[in-house]
Amino acid sequence: MNAKNQRDWSVDALDVLRVDEGFRLADVDPESSPGHPGGKARGADDLARGAAGLDQLQERLFAASRTDATDASVLLVLQAMDTAGKGGIIRHVVGSVDPQGIMLTAFKKPTQEELAHDFLWRIEKRVPTPGMIGVFDRSHYEDVLIGRVRSLAPADEIERRYGAINDFEKRLTDAGTRVVKVMLHISRDEQRDRLMERLDRPDKHWKYNPGDVDERELWAQYMDAYQVAFERTSTDYAPWYVVPANRKWYARLAVQALLLETLEGIDPQWPTATFDVDAEKARLAAG
Amino acid sequence: MNAKNQRDWSVDALDVLRVDEGFRLADVDPESSPGHPGGKARGADDLARGAAGLDQLQERLFAASRTDATDASVLLVLQAMDTAGKGGIIRHVVGSVDPQGIMLTAFKKPTQEELAHDFLWRIEKRVPTPGMIGVFDRSHYEDVLIGRVRSLAPADEIERRYGAINDFEKRLTDAGTRVVKVMLHISRDEQRDRLMERLDRPDKHWKYNPGDVDERELWAQYMDAYQVAFERTSTDYAPWYVVPANRKWYARLAVQALLLETLEGIDPQWPTATFDVDAEKARLAAG
Repeated sequence: MNAKNQRDWSVDALDVLRVDEGFRLADVDPESSPGHPGGKARGADDLARGAAGLDQLQERLFAASRTDATDASVLLVLQAMDTAGKGGIIRHVVGSVDPQGIMLTAFKKPTQEELAHDFLWRIEKRVPTPGMIGVFDRSHYEDVLIGRVRSLAPADEIERRYGAINDFEKRLTDAGTRVVKVMLHISRDEQRDRLMERLDRPDKHWKYNPGDVDERELWAQYMDAYQVAFERTSTDYAPWYVVPANRKWYARLAVQALLLETLEGIDPQWPTATFDVDAEKARLAAG
Repeated sequence: MNAKNQRDWSVDALDVLRVDEGFRLADVDPESSPGHPGGKARGADDLARGAAGLDQLQERLFAASRTDATDASVLLVLQAMDTAGKGGIIRHVVGSVDPQGIMLTAFKKPTQEELAHDFLWRIEKRVPTPGMIGVFDRSHYEDVLIGRVRSLAPADEIERRYGAINDFEKRLTDAGTRVVKVMLHISRDEQRDRLMERLDRPDKHWKYNPGDVDERELWAQYMDAYQVAFERTSTDYAPWYVVPANRKWYARLAVQALLLETLEGIDPQWPTATFDVDAEKARLAAG
């Protein structure tokens, strides 16, 4: 099974979306669909096929971890401006996987107790255990994104955090976790359209927060903060991936492809029995 | 929207599966499909339609809780003998819901730290917050099931627990949680067939545990322990439901119906906007 060959990708998503040396966020077109020939209908077909593949790979990963055959796990980190589609990714991509294999955490504004600790304290508690796919809806990167834009901490503390994040992610990786960091990239105009739709529909009002418009005023500063975060924390062991997200079908397919290719890289196998199969059959038949 | 009318149920699952005064587990046929005209194909259609209804109701419940419009939540407790299909229920029924609205916990053999506390200590920590659907894969009932059968605690401690469970569930209910306690009921012969299938398929070996056959020897004692638990803890505020589970299509449909009817009972509504919609539209259009 290979994500690229099985579906319509012309290249690996892990290659084409990766943030490497010299990357500039300003050069990424949020309308684009790199690596995929495109088309909403074709995208939907691909997504369904990919879901079946993801389902199999996840079950194998989980099974392998039950008998200590692997310490591998996956951590998907989702960061984005409001309305960029994190929720849709969780619902349609993560949601296609058996919930028993998913460890999902939505990080909100830190509580008083969380603020009293180092910024990684609450993150450590939600790191996936072997065999699991962890998903962070927002993450420790908030502490160098809104943290930087809104000066929620002194400048030297923000600086310290980039190094602390790299150390943390290196430790996770050494322990068997594949860290997949995704920024969903929409344009400022697209955000306006999506916020307007929430205002137009009474069943979407609950998703609208007047504070979102305040953050929107700081768009350029946020893009700068993302650029700096990429430069400081896109490492060999835990690179960033920027996913153009104005087209929802593409963003979902791209994140699914990143997960598929990561699991294919692990290549988990069904564990062999740790008991005598024939003896167990005899025992079971007898009673 | 009404679960009974929308689909093929002739009665409410909440009524027909409920454990009332005089209930005897020994009288339930695990092959039966009470309240549903039956048929695997028809069941699959119903399950797909039910998933769409569940999806809508869950989103409304979640939305209503975001603006303090409700403190309601749901807690689905799943108990069963091995192979009865808890995993399938989680995958196919719970798995059809947006993962952002689900709080799933699989309770394993207690750790040393958990054993050092009262048996409800680890349970309390995983109670669903408002707007969420909590799911317990095994639960505090293990402490009066295997706890009783294997004498893991003194007899008077087991006796104490029934009352403690009722007090706990009353408190949950008073705080807005609908507690839906489900026992999936298979026959001993069906379990043998399912265990044998796990032994026949190398990709299922990881699900087989020789200890399962030891528990199987205690089948009658387990059925007695369930009967006592029903008599002591099936209350007005938190009744038990026994779901015949030899037919997987029926068990899934029945648990889905229990969830649907419970959510319909809550009848969550889209919350009204807490901001001036027109003013926000103007502000958004301007920037």
